[in-house]
Amino acid sequence: MTEINIIPVIMSGGAGTRLWPASRQATPKQLLPLISEQTMIQETAKRLRGAWDGFSFGVPVIVCNTSHAASITKQLGGLGIKPGTIITEPVPRNTAPCAAIAALAVQAQDPDALMLLAPADHHINNKPAFAQVVTAGLAAAEAGYLVTFGITAETPETGYGYIQKGAALDDHAFKVAAFKEKPRKEIAEEYITSGAYFWNAGIFMCKPSVLLAEMKKHCPDILATCEIAYSASAKQGGILSLDEKSFAACPADSIDYAVMERTDKAAVVEANMGWSDIGSWSALWERTKDESGNAHNGDVHTIDTTNSLIHTDGPFVATIGIDNLAVIVHQGAILVANMDKVQDVKKVVDFLKARGDTAKL
Amino acid sequence: MTEINIIPVIMSGGAGTRLWPASRQATPKQLLPLISEQTMIQETAKRLRGAWDGFSFGVPVIVCNTSHAASITKQLGGLGIKPGTIITEPVPRNTAPCAAIAALAVQAQDPDALMLLAPADHHINNKPAFAQVVTAGLAAAEAGYLVTFGITAETPETGYGYIQKGAALDDHAFKVAAFKEKPRKEIAEEYITSGAYFWNAGIFMCKPSVLLAEMKKHCPDILATCEIAYSASAKQGGILSLDEKSFAACPADSIDYAVMERTDKAAVVEANMGWSDIGSWSALWERTKDESGNAHNGDVHTIDTTNSLIHTDGPFVATIGIDNLAVIVHQGAILVANMDKVQDVKKVVDFLKARGDTAKL
Repeated sequence: MTEINIIPVIMSGGAGTRLWPASRQATPKQLLPLISEQTMIQETAKRLRGAWDGFSFGVPVIVCNTSHAASITKQLGGLGIKPGTIITEPVPRNTAPCAAIAALAVQAQDPDALMLLAPADHHINNKPAFAQVVTAGLAAAEAGYLVTFGITAETPETGYGYIQKGAALDDHAFKVAAFKEKPRKEIAEEYITSGAYFWNAGIFMCKPSVLLAEMKKHCPDILATCEIAYSASAKQGGILSLDEKSFAACPADSIDYAVMERTDKAAVVEANMGWSDIGSWSALWERTKDESGNAHNGDVHTIDTTNSLIHTDGPFVATIGIDNLAVIVHQGAILVANMDKVQDVKKVVDFLKARGDTAKL
Repeated sequence: MTEINIIPVIMSGGAGTRLWPASRQATPKQLLPLISEQTMIQETAKRLRGAWDGFSFGVPVIVCNTSHAASITKQLGGLGIKPGTIITEPVPRNTAPCAAIAALAVQAQDPDALMLLAPADHHINNKPAFAQVVTAGLAAAEAGYLVTFGITAETPETGYGYIQKGAALDDHAFKVAAFKEKPRKEIAEEYITSGAYFWNAGIFMCKPSVLLAEMKKHCPDILATCEIAYSASAKQGGILSLDEKSFAACPADSIDYAVMERTDKAAVVEANMGWSDIGSWSALWERTKDESGNAHNGDVHTIDTTNSLIHTDGPFVATIGIDNLAVIVHQGAILVANMDKVQDVKKVVDFLKARGDTAKL
């Protein structure tokens, strides 16, 4: 098998308010060191490099908000990674426009390459497994499929979309039978029992030409506006700044809704690789807790403390006799939340928005 | 009845580590605004002034650690209160030496006055009741008794010492039958049932000459070293700085152990005045909570929060779905504690001492 060049496209458009007070507008989740000493986007970029079985990763394309380009350049530079292109979005438009623009950029960079679209803020525990999954999807992607990585569903999560597998395409890939919205608990349990469903992690691999062709078919308005924005963009020093006026005209939509749920080219390979989107403080806690059920970093001293996540970016934190709490101290703001209620952090963000407290957002 | 002059002696020697991280070596409990906008010592000084039924308060004597004299001068100055004398202790020696030195100072200031010894860091909710209790104790104090204010015991507290009342001396005062150490729960419950016991609040009123005579009888070594330290002290600008070498030679003891438990001059008047020593975060919470069971000040936003105390000196604190917690943010340190375990804050203080972290002590 000829070695395939895969251009990673790291999608860094997320705001990640569910990890407030650590994630802020200026420093969203992907720019924070949550799981390791390195930030999520650093870990993502490190995962998407090197030569593996049947393929090697090329220099990445980054798609991010304009305000984050400098931080990302600096963070990746710290690892010796220089992106091929950093595409900056003056306004957020969800993942479909991001994918379209990236496909145009990848095609310009190497028309024979595959592109691998990956969110910048996901955690993958098993790096060799990740590379194996990429290898497993190569044939289908080369054959003209839009290959999604379906995460082995371990628990009946109601916070994820699901992918139902259909007929086998080869030893590893299946046609996608259906994409399923975030299900109710009972439905999620049925999915788990059936064994035919994966979590939708939003990671895709395909030929850019195939993606562009499918977008022309299923969301031509998005593609058309993206082509205009891409043409009108300013390129300087490796940064491709999308034209604000034309990109703002692009409908905001996810690649799932705009393309994947409509195309007959959707394929899925199973990915059992310790994936998590770290979509909440409780998810981070699950990934990082020790034997006592605690996870903490920073200057923390715990007494009779169990099942708790404690993060501080500086101030000393002491806990006594607490259980099942998230205690997060970051840049002058402090969250103390029941671990089962951490999703309500959005209410705190709404409160801060309502009082115009941009310094804490 | 001739109007009696009472010189208040405000004892500000306490460290108050039980309210860490708010109370620190540089700013112990009495220097903090915990219950109101004013600090505990400000509230204490305000309570100990003015003319009341049968007596009027003279300018106070303050006894404090050398390092706190400037803060106290400033805090009381802010209320227009200028102490007669501020006596500074170069080392802490508990309340018996403090009382001895204060008696010498009060005697020098007005030999006919009574002295009223009061800790600087206690809260008294009912100020008119306090003045009534002082009035109730005047006759016994004038008759040569060491009058203690016995707090009406509402609950079987195991954290306080108790005073057992004996025979009546007059309409208000009783001989003290016994002082009781902090009791076990069952014993405390018996005390409450009997109705013959009060909480020992460490507030005393007497003639300084009587106190000095009883000290000469029961703790002559303390009195003798205090007389030397007092004579060797330097007085400048209203501050009487105790001589370090001679005061350090004084045995450390409480006035309860050194005098009150040994003398036959101990009397008690009942004081039902909403007293609390605010000896823990839970005590502060009890005194300040609202209908939802919460007490908070500073920039705090609570969601589904009950029975919790939340204090911050600056950083924004958001709480979600918590119950029965103390969350205290003060000068770069944060405590999150189960309300039933707040006494273990001393373990945190010990931890900080062990690592030599004086900035947080």
